[in-house]
Amino acid sequence: MRKIGKQEIEDMAVGAALLGTGGGGDPYIGKLMALQAIEEFGPVTVLDPEEVPDDALVVPSSMMGAPTVMLEKVPSGEEAIEAFQKLEAYLDEKIYATFPIEAGGVNSMLPFALAARLGLPVVDADGMGRAFPELQMVTFYLDGISATPAVIADEKGNSALLTTIDNVWTERIARAATIEMGGSVMNAMYSMRGKQLRESGIPNILRLEEEIGKTIRLAKENNVNAIQEVLKTVGGFELFRGKVTDIDRKTETGFARGIATFEGIGNDKGETLQLRFQNEHLLATKGEQVVCVTPDLIAVLDAETGLPITTEGIRYGTRCVIIGIPCHPKWRTKKGIETVGPGYFGYDVDFVPVEELVNKGGEK
Amino acid sequence: MRKIGKQEIEDMAVGAALLGTGGGGDPYIGKLMALQAIEEFGPVTVLDPEEVPDDALVVPSSMMGAPTVMLEKVPSGEEAIEAFQKLEAYLDEKIYATFPIEAGGVNSMLPFALAARLGLPVVDADGMGRAFPELQMVTFYLDGISATPAVIADEKGNSALLTTIDNVWTERIARAATIEMGGSVMNAMYSMRGKQLRESGIPNILRLEEEIGKTIRLAKENNVNAIQEVLKTVGGFELFRGKVTDIDRKTETGFARGIATFEGIGNDKGETLQLRFQNEHLLATKGEQVVCVTPDLIAVLDAETGLPITTEGIRYGTRCVIIGIPCHPKWRTKKGIETVGPGYFGYDVDFVPVEELVNKGGEK
Repeated sequence: MRKIGKQEIEDMAVGAALLGTGGGGDPYIGKLMALQAIEEFGPVTVLDPEEVPDDALVVPSSMMGAPTVMLEKVPSGEEAIEAFQKLEAYLDEKIYATFPIEAGGVNSMLPFALAARLGLPVVDADGMGRAFPELQMVTFYLDGISATPAVIADEKGNSALLTTIDNVWTERIARAATIEMGGSVMNAMYSMRGKQLRESGIPNILRLEEEIGKTIRLAKENNVNAIQEVLKTVGGFELFRGKVTDIDRKTETGFARGIATFEGIGNDKGETLQLRFQNEHLLATKGEQVVCVTPDLIAVLDAETGLPITTEGIRYGTRCVIIGIPCHPKWRTKKGIETVGPGYFGYDVDFVPVEELVNKGGEK
Repeated sequence: MRKIGKQEIEDMAVGAALLGTGGGGDPYIGKLMALQAIEEFGPVTVLDPEEVPDDALVVPSSMMGAPTVMLEKVPSGEEAIEAFQKLEAYLDEKIYATFPIEAGGVNSMLPFALAARLGLPVVDADGMGRAFPELQMVTFYLDGISATPAVIADEKGNSALLTTIDNVWTERIARAATIEMGGSVMNAMYSMRGKQLRESGIPNILRLEEEIGKTIRLAKENNVNAIQEVLKTVGGFELFRGKVTDIDRKTETGFARGIATFEGIGNDKGETLQLRFQNEHLLATKGEQVVCVTPDLIAVLDAETGLPITTEGIRYGTRCVIIGIPCHPKWRTKKGIETVGPGYFGYDVDFVPVEELVNKGGEK
């Protein structure tokens, strides 16, 4: 058990945005929401998964929709409370604690904004260890935990409580409703028991986020290279160094989709890297060669500061370092790859772990 | 209080299809569902609105979606029960009776199919006195009765319980979810008290449907003209006699939309009539001249048998009589015209009562 104040939130927001692999929402908005709630209601208690009673009811607080929409439609906090209260009424049980569904600029922060208001603790575990664009893309789904009963609520006061035959149907129906409700909504879904979260979730995600953020923040005063330090912290690889020459992005069917193109600088001069994304970066290719692919993590960092850049933050001319990070082993299982591998997103490539791709590239 | 058996159902289905003005679903499917339930569970009790206690909880059972989809996706009856049970659980109260939301081939019959299974009575009142394509298009909306809490349920086992800020939002979110759920779902919405139904609903719609069906059925053996007899029963007007020369129909955004063109025969030889529909027939024009427009009723009858033809039943070459019927006075109010008048559907014409249009045409 530990208390989370403003500095921890600042660091976590940066680390979450990096693990959010370009998606998960704007870290600035997420951070502001959490900071404002902590300012008003005081620090939030974070529990290690082991500290949560077996039968305690725990529910992640998250947002769904296109990050590009979230930029213009900042949630007030009321809709998150509404979603939780509707779910509590339906289950006829008080919620013991909340937790993040994923690592990402907004979705890592929303549990803190809600927890501060409701006086709930936040559990240090999530369902992805990164960010993914669809509701069924959580370790809970791999372990057979139902997304429903699921409540979605918009800022206008509309809400829907879904009961579906599987989590893919939750995604389909909630996504259609979300688009109609203005492109983004607050969720209360994947309610589970403390024991389930401990067994199925990815633990210590908040500690990792904080560590990444702190590393980047302190790099300058410690006179070390931020990106090299981050790579050590996360066990990742530098894939490419280049500047943005083209960014083709549109918001469609409720997602921000597109392709970003980088022209190499330094050792990568003369080469071109392309990133394909659907909210999150999913595939990085250098010419015909895959250099990193989902479910492994692809993050774009500012070459100078080491700060992560979201897909909607990618601007022409920005100098970036693209890094790859091995995903949690749960995603490298057969069901994991079926759920979030390149085939699911329509890319005609096989999943190969980033550490193998990097070695192969090195052997050339 | 009276018992409804198979003959009454047969007649009501025909009358409901006529008042359904081309929409409200295929009368054959609706009839079969009701007949099968009555066969299995026995006759259904129909209550006059005056027989329902003031504070009794009454809920219409209906389907939403494109009638063209309903043809291929016949509900099993289970999803209607599921929708009712979810609503009862949410309200924590047993439903006393059901009733039709509208007159229409399917939606007039679904309450009987459900009532037979659950042993509930059906109240002889509806919310339209005809059929309309959207959820907020009910007299209950004009009287400020909320559509939510609203449950929609599909045949796969998915359901959503909506709480919205107004009935137009119920329509928007439910429609988006319906499209995702396969194009049609069962509803349990517009729950209200007996007193509200009595004050806001349109009474004796089932008696009228039955009378219309009986008139058409008995016309031949009584050696009278079915269409002339029906016009007397409903207080309507013959607008045009012609054969179908073109039918342009597509299912889009969850509706069956299109235009049907008729070439005059008999007294109307040399003239052309066009019908525009969105599930229901909404606008009939002869050249530039409006001959009947929503909310007044436009029905297409088979010239020979007098039987109503739905929009999806219109076939090239069929000889038809198009009739117009004055709508219930509630629809001719300012809010009524705003809700279901020609402007709402995007037609650039003013509402003029069909009886005036017919007289104007006569003066030429």
